[in-house]
Amino acid sequence: MVTKILNGLVVAEAIKDSLIERVQKLKNDDITPCLATILVGNDPSSETYVKMKGNACEKLGIQSKRIHLPEETTTKELIACIEELNNDPQVDGILLQHPVPSHIDERAAFEMIAIEKDVDGVTSRGFGKLSFGFEQYPCCTPAAIMAIIDYYDIEVEGKHAVVIGRSPILGKPVSMLLLNRNATVTMCHSKTVNLPDFVKQADIVIAAVGRPKFVQGDWIKEGAVILDAGYNEGNIGDVDYDACFEKSSSITPVPGGVGPVTISMLLKHTVESAEHRANKSIKINN
Amino acid sequence: MVTKILNGLVVAEAIKDSLIERVQKLKNDDITPCLATILVGNDPSSETYVKMKGNACEKLGIQSKRIHLPEETTTKELIACIEELNNDPQVDGILLQHPVPSHIDERAAFEMIAIEKDVDGVTSRGFGKLSFGFEQYPCCTPAAIMAIIDYYDIEVEGKHAVVIGRSPILGKPVSMLLLNRNATVTMCHSKTVNLPDFVKQADIVIAAVGRPKFVQGDWIKEGAVILDAGYNEGNIGDVDYDACFEKSSSITPVPGGVGPVTISMLLKHTVESAEHRANKSIKINN
Repeated sequence: MVTKILNGLVVAEAIKDSLIERVQKLKNDDITPCLATILVGNDPSSETYVKMKGNACEKLGIQSKRIHLPEETTTKELIACIEELNNDPQVDGILLQHPVPSHIDERAAFEMIAIEKDVDGVTSRGFGKLSFGFEQYPCCTPAAIMAIIDYYDIEVEGKHAVVIGRSPILGKPVSMLLLNRNATVTMCHSKTVNLPDFVKQADIVIAAVGRPKFVQGDWIKEGAVILDAGYNEGNIGDVDYDACFEKSSSITPVPGGVGPVTISMLLKHTVESAEHRANKSIKINN
Repeated sequence: MVTKILNGLVVAEAIKDSLIERVQKLKNDDITPCLATILVGNDPSSETYVKMKGNACEKLGIQSKRIHLPEETTTKELIACIEELNNDPQVDGILLQHPVPSHIDERAAFEMIAIEKDVDGVTSRGFGKLSFGFEQYPCCTPAAIMAIIDYYDIEVEGKHAVVIGRSPILGKPVSMLLLNRNATVTMCHSKTVNLPDFVKQADIVIAAVGRPKFVQGDWIKEGAVILDAGYNEGNIGDVDYDACFEKSSSITPVPGGVGPVTISMLLKHTVESAEHRANKSIKINN
């Protein structure tokens, strides 16, 4: 069997290419899509992530409104900042970079993001809508996983997907996206007993654990599809790539897999939100 | 092995008993818990269900505000009715009896129920909060399943729960409740391939399919726990009870299993909502 590498860079480029014309069309209507990013404190990797996202916006003609709050920001101050952005008609999307300093109630802050600007898909309200099949921006990493699946025409319906990890921004939403596409989904996590036995049954493995090289080669069923959403220090995925490569029919590398597509999804959601703004303004003008 | 019958009537009584004192305490504070039920049209079994719920309220001293709208009610009119109840400070909970006549957009109506009055747990917003582990009224049938599990001290953590069915008011929320209690959860449905093979691995089987006697005895692993949320015509569950009884360590009968506990959960959520109202009014008075 020849294993196919699921190249996230190619998928990311395809998505970004598809957005160029849409951004141009918006600009012709005097609307510049705008993503506001909020960085709190001075965590170096968070700074890098936010910068990458901002740069990716600008490269595509999306305005990047970068807000950098000091380490000592309180939950209340952060929420006030989010509310200001919620009310700013020029802002189409709001991204609060995770993690914030530990004295802040991050979840309370996430929940304050207006649903129509939640392009990063972090609110519980957005998760609920997504789970029930309403139109909604899914979390960007789960959306990236689905975009890779679609780009490479990987069959989902009737397949057994095993999701390892149950975070609100990864494991839970990707489980719901796969379920709504008619996969049978098993949600595994740190309390799962005999995890390898579950993974061994998977047609599709989603690794979203946050532990480097956690998923072993001998856990993988011959011919399984592996999507590695891990991004551990040193750019190492959650999957032991070399060992899993042999067994799988297709696999995402790290780096160059899910990561770059995640940023593209953020851009795509921001453009979609700007298109909603454009449609609304057309309605008002008429 | 002696199979234990999980007696829903006993669980329901225990829950209702625990509410008597709480209702009395509210009344001492001049607050009468109130559940508004909305019935649209003349479906006889819906009429029966609504009547049962209303009577159960009154038996416990909870006010039952029964609204019966005609068959030809529009979505807009139904939503206007819900909004009026949302704004009525005397109403603690709103239950819209499912199903409504087919010309009405039932989901749109459900979504309009104010989150703090969604004691039946039908909104996507409530589902999102529940999934993320926030305090929230879960859907009553999933809540009933968890109440039975707790009453009979059934271990959930690390167990493999297989949920058959993925409806927004049953399969999806019960999956999330079990996941948040550290079960490994497999979500199965009509597109699942080789369903018996999944069920055969389950320590806990949740049947939420809506097809009479669907789950067969030879699908059940020796010693599994079976919770049957089915309520098909003629009071027949989703599980072939006699065949599954032999294999399981414990099982809910139909009738007398999940059903009666569901109504108790509705009462419990209504009382909780009234307690929130009481706490708010105390805060205002001080």
